[in-house]
Amino acid sequence: VSHMVNGFDPSRLTELPGSDRVLVQRRSSAMGAAYRLFYDRPVHVVRASGVHLYDSEGNEYLDAYNNVPVVGHSNERVREAVHAQLGLVNTHTRYLTDPVIEYAERLTALFPDPLTQAIFVCTGSEAVDLALRIARSVTGRSGVIVTRHAYHGTTSAAASISPSLGPNNPIPPNVALVDAPDAVRDAFGSAAMAFGERIDRSIAELKERGFEPAALVLDSVMSSDGLQVGDPALVQVAADRARACGALYVADEVQGGFGRTGRWWAFGQSVTPDLVVLGKPMGNGLPIAAVVGRPDSFDAFGRSVRYFNTFGGNPVCVAAASAVLDEIQERSLVRHAQDAGSELRSSLSSAIGGDPAVAQVRQAGLFLAVELIGPGGAPDSDRALRVVNAMRRRRILISASGTYDNVLKVRPPLVFPRDAMPQLIEGLVESFDETQ
Amino acid sequence: VSHMVNGFDPSRLTELPGSDRVLVQRRSSAMGAAYRLFYDRPVHVVRASGVHLYDSEGNEYLDAYNNVPVVGHSNERVREAVHAQLGLVNTHTRYLTDPVIEYAERLTALFPDPLTQAIFVCTGSEAVDLALRIARSVTGRSGVIVTRHAYHGTTSAAASISPSLGPNNPIPPNVALVDAPDAVRDAFGSAAMAFGERIDRSIAELKERGFEPAALVLDSVMSSDGLQVGDPALVQVAADRARACGALYVADEVQGGFGRTGRWWAFGQSVTPDLVVLGKPMGNGLPIAAVVGRPDSFDAFGRSVRYFNTFGGNPVCVAAASAVLDEIQERSLVRHAQDAGSELRSSLSSAIGGDPAVAQVRQAGLFLAVELIGPGGAPDSDRALRVVNAMRRRRILISASGTYDNVLKVRPPLVFPRDAMPQLIEGLVESFDETQ
Repeated sequence: VSHMVNGFDPSRLTELPGSDRVLVQRRSSAMGAAYRLFYDRPVHVVRASGVHLYDSEGNEYLDAYNNVPVVGHSNERVREAVHAQLGLVNTHTRYLTDPVIEYAERLTALFPDPLTQAIFVCTGSEAVDLALRIARSVTGRSGVIVTRHAYHGTTSAAASISPSLGPNNPIPPNVALVDAPDAVRDAFGSAAMAFGERIDRSIAELKERGFEPAALVLDSVMSSDGLQVGDPALVQVAADRARACGALYVADEVQGGFGRTGRWWAFGQSVTPDLVVLGKPMGNGLPIAAVVGRPDSFDAFGRSVRYFNTFGGNPVCVAAASAVLDEIQERSLVRHAQDAGSELRSSLSSAIGGDPAVAQVRQAGLFLAVELIGPGGAPDSDRALRVVNAMRRRRILISASGTYDNVLKVRPPLVFPRDAMPQLIEGLVESFDETQ
Repeated sequence: VSHMVNGFDPSRLTELPGSDRVLVQRRSSAMGAAYRLFYDRPVHVVRASGVHLYDSEGNEYLDAYNNVPVVGHSNERVREAVHAQLGLVNTHTRYLTDPVIEYAERLTALFPDPLTQAIFVCTGSEAVDLALRIARSVTGRSGVIVTRHAYHGTTSAAASISPSLGPNNPIPPNVALVDAPDAVRDAFGSAAMAFGERIDRSIAELKERGFEPAALVLDSVMSSDGLQVGDPALVQVAADRARACGALYVADEVQGGFGRTGRWWAFGQSVTPDLVVLGKPMGNGLPIAAVVGRPDSFDAFGRSVRYFNTFGGNPVCVAAASAVLDEIQERSLVRHAQDAGSELRSSLSSAIGGDPAVAQVRQAGLFLAVELIGPGGAPDSDRALRVVNAMRRRRILISASGTYDNVLKVRPPLVFPRDAMPQLIEGLVESFDETQ
């Protein structure tokens, strides 16, 4: 059975209360074995508002994990924008419709030149998949470089570059895996250079297997690799090495984009990607995603291959996405992510940073990672999982990830208010104590 | 440049009225060359209701083409269901949520045993892509058989089995193409047997190239092949041949499903697919799609590989999909598609069936195809395109498809009322006259 960190173990079904047990059984029966649930005791969500989820018994949960409802669960502005557009028209892009054009202009204006064009799809997976198609078409090559514990999506092509999906998910020979930077284990000060050298080696490896590199696909925050955000030079060195041999640099901003890191885009100011992949937070839960790129790439692809996505860029999902930009801009959520994230990091470091189990606290905006080790310095995934479930018992939702599954992931909606911080910090302190 | 039947030719931009010209230019500038528009003069849609679209000048268009808004453009029930759910919660399937389970039960109850499970995604392309992953995982093979002019979607894997995307869309060696049945050119009475023999040959072809067949993927109405729906034995023979050598039969019901053909599913009563792919009409325009299958297949896949789609099965898209089922059931739209489709076919055959340009009128429910030939019997794609644009000038929206681009496609929303039929028929008669 495929392992998933923080997955509910179906063999423990009998430990659940009766009503949840029946629901989980109905779910298994109608939706099958490919589905997984979070936590030792799954959360049965019936409503949500702002940074809170509520279960079927009326209990309130502090959401410090969801990276989709960035402008808040049940956001009224998104809700009303969707309602208004559903009363007007919802159709595809083979008719001329204004909303998708206006949104494309507004979105691309948030990127540095020459990233001036957007193609709309419905999910981050579709966006990654399309970026791969474009990179292959533009370069005439098929090799792809990704980090060893990367996650980029769930279509056949996206899964083929997502080694974090586990040993039963085949990685084909045209995909080269490089060890991500490791802020705990890399030699001090040499991480970027070492990462660059590993990229070079992966390119050589691809060539030995008969593949020229079409693309380096890199999650800008290396989320599945445990949030490796220590040094902006990491991405730059990697992008430079890949480009030096003719590959495109594809920035996967599904996790890091739309203000999460306290900047609009996580790829940073020093390097402009060839293609940018957007997803999750884009429509606050309505399915909309995109590839942003240069006109020369899109022209080369688009002249030879037409691309059509029936639901991609539909006016309703675009209305949601526009409302999300309104909210981010008018409520200064990028700045808030930067400021509140820094404060949260300070509080968190003060509260648990001295614990010998805490190897490192990493943070970029409102994305925080706490890496846990055991007495001998070995990664402690068991402790991470116990902390995650201790937090869940306290009705605070976080999860874990990383190459060794030993990194606590704290990634609340961007509207996470300062007055929710004490609850999160106290919960962490108690959960650390409880799991010692 | 990739050819698309009924695509707007950007070199004719100067022929458009000023305001549309500017909008098309802005669109090209912000969205790039991969996008295509329909018709000699694209339709600039600003609102829609029922079976009507309205352009920026207030002109009304009769929609006889869109297969997504099956329960009508701007359907109020869908709109209010989405609005209500957006005020409650919209989150992913790693929490327990009721709506997706209830919908999965309701959806799978519409299928014959043993098709009792559903996995939810956002687009038909994602569903096709997932069906391919499941078929490969379950059979341990990678060969796929599709028809020579098939369209199955737009992810890398779905595009690789979509030869209708044109010569610049590469079809890899693990994909075998078979000539679809051709109701005009096949010898009378032998179409099903001949199709079965071609399937056998394609399997042999795959084996010669070193691939065992994992799946036969077949659009149940063979829409891109010109709507080949004459004989239910066609699908059955093909499915039997594929299964005889261990391949799964995957029914692509993105076009034919949810009542379009006057039955819930187009694959018919005589054969039960191994996997069914659903999409377009499922949420009346909200992005939701699914793979329906047997527990044994889903278990075999799901035990070794977890599948997670962030937006797949979210409560808001599920609310739309539930409202679509409510509408189809309470308004008896499956029956309506059957009855109204038959009437439309009769009227249409009476009106233009005697024209020597009409080789055949084919119909299944509210999906009609009119195949056009020239004086010598050759496919007349030019005439088809001119009829489509003559209809558009009359503000009646249809399009064309088929192996030779010579088949008029009439595929209105399922709520198409009887009193709209005369306008459609008169428009067709006039357009035929005008294009002689």
